Amino acid sequence: MTTIGFAGLGNMGSPMAANLIAAGHDVRVFDLVEDLMTNVSGAHPQTSAAAAAAGVDVFISMLPAGRHVESLYIGDDGILSGMSKSTLIIDCSTIDPQTAQRVAAAAKAHGCQMLDAPVSGGTGGAINGTLTFIVGGDALALERARPVLGAMGANIFHAGASGAGQIAKICNNMLLAIQMAGTAEALALGVSNGLDPAVLSQIMKESSGGNWALNVYNPYPGVMSGVPASRNYQGGFLVDLMIKDLGLAMQTALASRSSVPLGSLANNLFRLHEQTADAGQLDFSSIQKLYLRKK
Amino acid sequence: MTTIGFAGLGNMGSPMAANLIAAGHDVRVFDLVEDLMTNVSGAHPQTSAAAAAAGVDVFISMLPAGRHVESLYIGDDGILSGMSKSTLIIDCSTIDPQTAQRVAAAAKAHGCQMLDAPVSGGTGGAINGTLTFIVGGDALALERARPVLGAMGANIFHAGASGAGQIAKICNNMLLAIQMAGTAEALALGVSNGLDPAVLSQIMKESSGGNWALNVYNPYPGVMSGVPASRNYQGGFLVDLMIKDLGLAMQTALASRSSVPLGSLANNLFRLHEQTADAGQLDFSSIQKLYLRKK
Amino acid sequence: MTTIGFAGLGNMGSPMAANLIAAGHDVRVFDLVEDLMTNVSGAHPQTSAAAAAAGVDVFISMLPAGRHVESLYIGDDGILSGMSKSTLIIDCSTIDPQTAQRVAAAAKAHGCQMLDAPVSGGTGGAINGTLTFIVGGDALALERARPVLGAMGANIFHAGASGAGQIAKICNNMLLAIQMAGTAEALALGVSNGLDPAVLSQIMKESSGGNWALNVYNPYPGVMSGVPASRNYQGGFLVDLMIKDLGLAMQTALASRSSVPLGSLANNLFRLHEQTADAGQLDFSSIQKLYLRKK
Amino acid sequence: MTTIGFAGLGNMGSPMAANLIAAGHDVRVFDLVEDLMTNVSGAHPQTSAAAAAAGVDVFISMLPAGRHVESLYIGDDGILSGMSKSTLIIDCSTIDPQTAQRVAAAAKAHGCQMLDAPVSGGTGGAINGTLTFIVGGDALALERARPVLGAMGANIFHAGASGAGQIAKICNNMLLAIQMAGTAEALALGVSNGLDPAVLSQIMKESSGGNWALNVYNPYPGVMSGVPASRNYQGGFLVDLMIKDLGLAMQTALASRSSVPLGSLANNLFRLHEQTADAGQLDFSSIQKLYLRKK
Repeated sequence: MTTIGFAGLGNMGSPMAANLIAAGHDVRVFDLVEDLMTNVSGAHPQTSAAAAAAGVDVFISMLPAGRHVESLYIGDDGILSGMSKSTLIIDCSTIDPQTAQRVAAAAKAHGCQMLDAPVSGGTGGAINGTLTFIVGGDALALERARPVLGAMGANIFHAGASGAGQIAKICNNMLLAIQMAGTAEALALGVSNGLDPAVLSQIMKESSGGNWALNVYNPYPGVMSGVPASRNYQGGFLVDLMIKDLGLAMQTALASRSSVPLGSLANNLFRLHEQTADAGQLDFSSIQKLYLRKK
Repeated sequence: MTTIGFAGLGNMGSPMAANLIAAGHDVRVFDLVEDLMTNVSGAHPQTSAAAAAAGVDVFISMLPAGRHVESLYIGDDGILSGMSKSTLIIDCSTIDPQTAQRVAAAAKAHGCQMLDAPVSGGTGGAINGTLTFIVGGDALALERARPVLGAMGANIFHAGASGAGQIAKICNNMLLAIQMAGTAEALALGVSNGLDPAVLSQIMKESSGGNWALNVYNPYPGVMSGVPASRNYQGGFLVDLMIKDLGLAMQTALASRSSVPLGSLANNLFRLHEQTADAGQLDFSSIQKLYLRKK
Repeated sequence: MTTIGFAGLGNMGSPMAANLIAAGHDVRVFDLVEDLMTNVSGAHPQTSAAAAAAGVDVFISMLPAGRHVESLYIGDDGILSGMSKSTLIIDCSTIDPQTAQRVAAAAKAHGCQMLDAPVSGGTGGAINGTLTFIVGGDALALERARPVLGAMGANIFHAGASGAGQIAKICNNMLLAIQMAGTAEALALGVSNGLDPAVLSQIMKESSGGNWALNVYNPYPGVMSGVPASRNYQGGFLVDLMIKDLGLAMQTALASRSSVPLGSLANNLFRLHEQTADAGQLDFSSIQKLYLRKK
Repeated sequence: MTTIGFAGLGNMGSPMAANLIAAGHDVRVFDLVEDLMTNVSGAHPQTSAAAAAAGVDVFISMLPAGRHVESLYIGDDGILSGMSKSTLIIDCSTIDPQTAQRVAAAAKAHGCQMLDAPVSGGTGGAINGTLTFIVGGDALALERARPVLGAMGANIFHAGASGAGQIAKICNNMLLAIQMAGTAEALALGVSNGLDPAVLSQIMKESSGGNWALNVYNPYPGVMSGVPASRNYQGGFLVDLMIKDLGLAMQTALASRSSVPLGSLANNLFRLHEQTADAGQLDFSSIQKLYLRKK
């Protein structure tokens, strides 16, 4: 049994904490919204993040953005300075690599090991314990983390040094946005030229057009059952979250003077979709709607 | 044994004809370049396309562009008018759907069944008999064609009515261009932020970034063996051919008033790549070079 | 006084013919829609295009697309073969350069001089006789045409040989689409960051952001009076017509293997705008709406 | 006579300071590079920025990026805390609006008036005193600044409150990048279809394609004399600086969740141009080279 502190009990954090408890760990939780703490059965609510972090073996954070992570650890009332040097810190938030590196450097200066370990797999993966962790940081620290991460996810990748987890996730999600929109575009082109979207999907899937979006998350309504496209794009991975991740990709590209023409266009297409269809709370495969004629 | 006429013995046509002969068919070939006919061992060279088509069970054409197909069948000296009504016509050329439909309509008026059956799989697939055929036309005609197509390829898809084979291939290859360039872009973004391209490839492949280009045709030099990226982009599917297929996609989108922003950008990126690096005769995964800093 | 035949009395053709009559010419008109002929006061309606073209000094056509022009002159019942060699032919339609060149070559073979002379200036320019003519063809033929063109327009440019008028107009309108959408984008960016669109317009107009769209055709509602943006984008140059011209630009780029990434994106943005807002019959400056948040 | 402190004597700052001296002001200068201070004839070199700012009527800064401005005024050794409340601060640097607003808020809290006043017009405008100032901040503060700005520039625009000068400049330069690249694209399309670039330029200039880039800064070699395109793109406004400004536009768009598809594509085209042709130190109209066939 490991004692684990856990900060951030949103849609992702709550089921992740629940899986840690189910695996037999002692989990001390904190969230600014008090009700979220009592909703996680078997968790030990704390009165502050500092209390949740006090003396634990592992401390995990799952927060919305870089500024929250920075504030939690190294802000004016940051908890890092009070943490035990033996605590392993794992930040599972998806944030900009610069902040991830800055906070990890502060942790190292304090004497703690810290990993950035953003996840993919969405709320479904969080509930079922099948998340993918993409980890940046020291390889030995990752070995320490494996048993804990293994209770929450099915795949663990080591992307490189501090921040590399964030960069790899950003690259992956930018490519995902491109191929989801590209798949929607190819399907719409076929349909407006008389093809059946299911037949075209089948052909491209077994040909060189195959990709994750087409193969397991088809955006065209009615082609695949059990995906958001078949329930009016409810649930899934929200357009607003994809726009957030694309924003991180754009910032990373700007900071490294990288050319990302397709990524930039995908970013703008998702924004136009969000604006013209008020689609922020729909699944991101709803980008298909942008391509379909209204009448 | 089937008697087969075959017109067009280029890089694709020659090995396709050879596989038909190897399967025991009687193959009568024609090409404007005489030497190409004598190079196909076991084939019966003819003095004209009309001679190759005279009285055969099946007639196959494999030509560079729509104007060649139109000219062969329904031009001033077109062979269609002299063909037997019992001959099944299979055009394996990749051409614009409009021409495919026009020629198929003429064949129908004449009394012949005709299929458009563009292929994917490249010269390797043609040599090894593992091509994919994407077929448009009547389902019964496709049943007649299966034994012959099966001698040249491993997969046969029925996309729909006349022209649908061309449309499905166009959609597939537009999506392929998007995901090849998108993959190159994501890899370059990762590398310029310190990631190892092989590690990043591995992570994205097993995550939602997975796609045909990343999974089996990695564009980054040194990541995957046996692909064009590991032999200076020699061989494979040429940039010039991808530009041809993207041109067909753009025409099809214009004709159907479809929005294809990512496909259009991919088209222009391949053109810029061809222009700035004189890359027309390199494999299309060389688009990776457009994204790498010259230093 | 010149005898002039005129085919095509749509929104543009009718006022153009009326200006020729006002300038004292003898104008013989034909349109498939009989009522359109009687609406042009002072014109001499004919029973066919051939009748309108018989023995005139100058014959003018103003038709929707290349296929109409091709059909009129060199189709199955084409009028060219019956025309007098002394008749100067001026096609004012905006069509693809290939068709313009093909028809002009046929005219030359027949012994007639022919000019392609697409116009800009819209219905307002047609009514007021202030059109701009962008002319391709022989310089001496243009000198013959000047007095007639001068009765309908204020500016006459000689772009080059046959087809050059079409190419120059296509280039101009592609650039116009880019700068109209670019202006809309810059204004929306400023407004969403707190700027007054009128103040920002004024600053950019007198700086390096100045362009025709910003300077005389501001797309932001309420900034400039007397433009479509100030009357709910009614009237003006329709989105559908801009999409037609962008289609010609895309075809011209494909045929010449030219890279037009911004033009292609503008083309797709206008299409997305048309699709998502059913905007085909609005003025093209309504592209501004694509950029404005719905709420 | 006004006493003026001036920090930052680069390619822009030096001639600006020189024009203030020529107008009879007492100018106290500071730059980290000592030689730059002695090169400005008539200026009074100081040993620190704080010394240059001590007790002056007006203090002007002209620095490369937001972090320099932030550091100068409110960093660890920031000079703001030691400045007289009667000193008017004018920051002429082109930086991100967020930093501009943050520093201006600190100045206000300290009791000083501060303007953001980025310039356009390049080194030529700086030398000739014909710069354009785009100003954000209080209108009364701008009135105080006018006599000083007037010694360095010809046009002064009031864009709005603090930061508005930066936003307006960013919008303008994003539009400039779009229309420069769009102009290059239209010219290349025309040329590859046989048009003379000078003739096409003339036609578009007097038609709806007219824009600042086309009209006074033609990017096609040989069309216009006295512009960078006619001297191998030496001098002028560097690609690297345009990329910097486009980076600010992209950040501003991300922060305000604005859609800027054409601006994003222009950003990526300038980056691709810089990468593939090592063009960072060429004038930005050299984007024309990206569109011309290498042959």
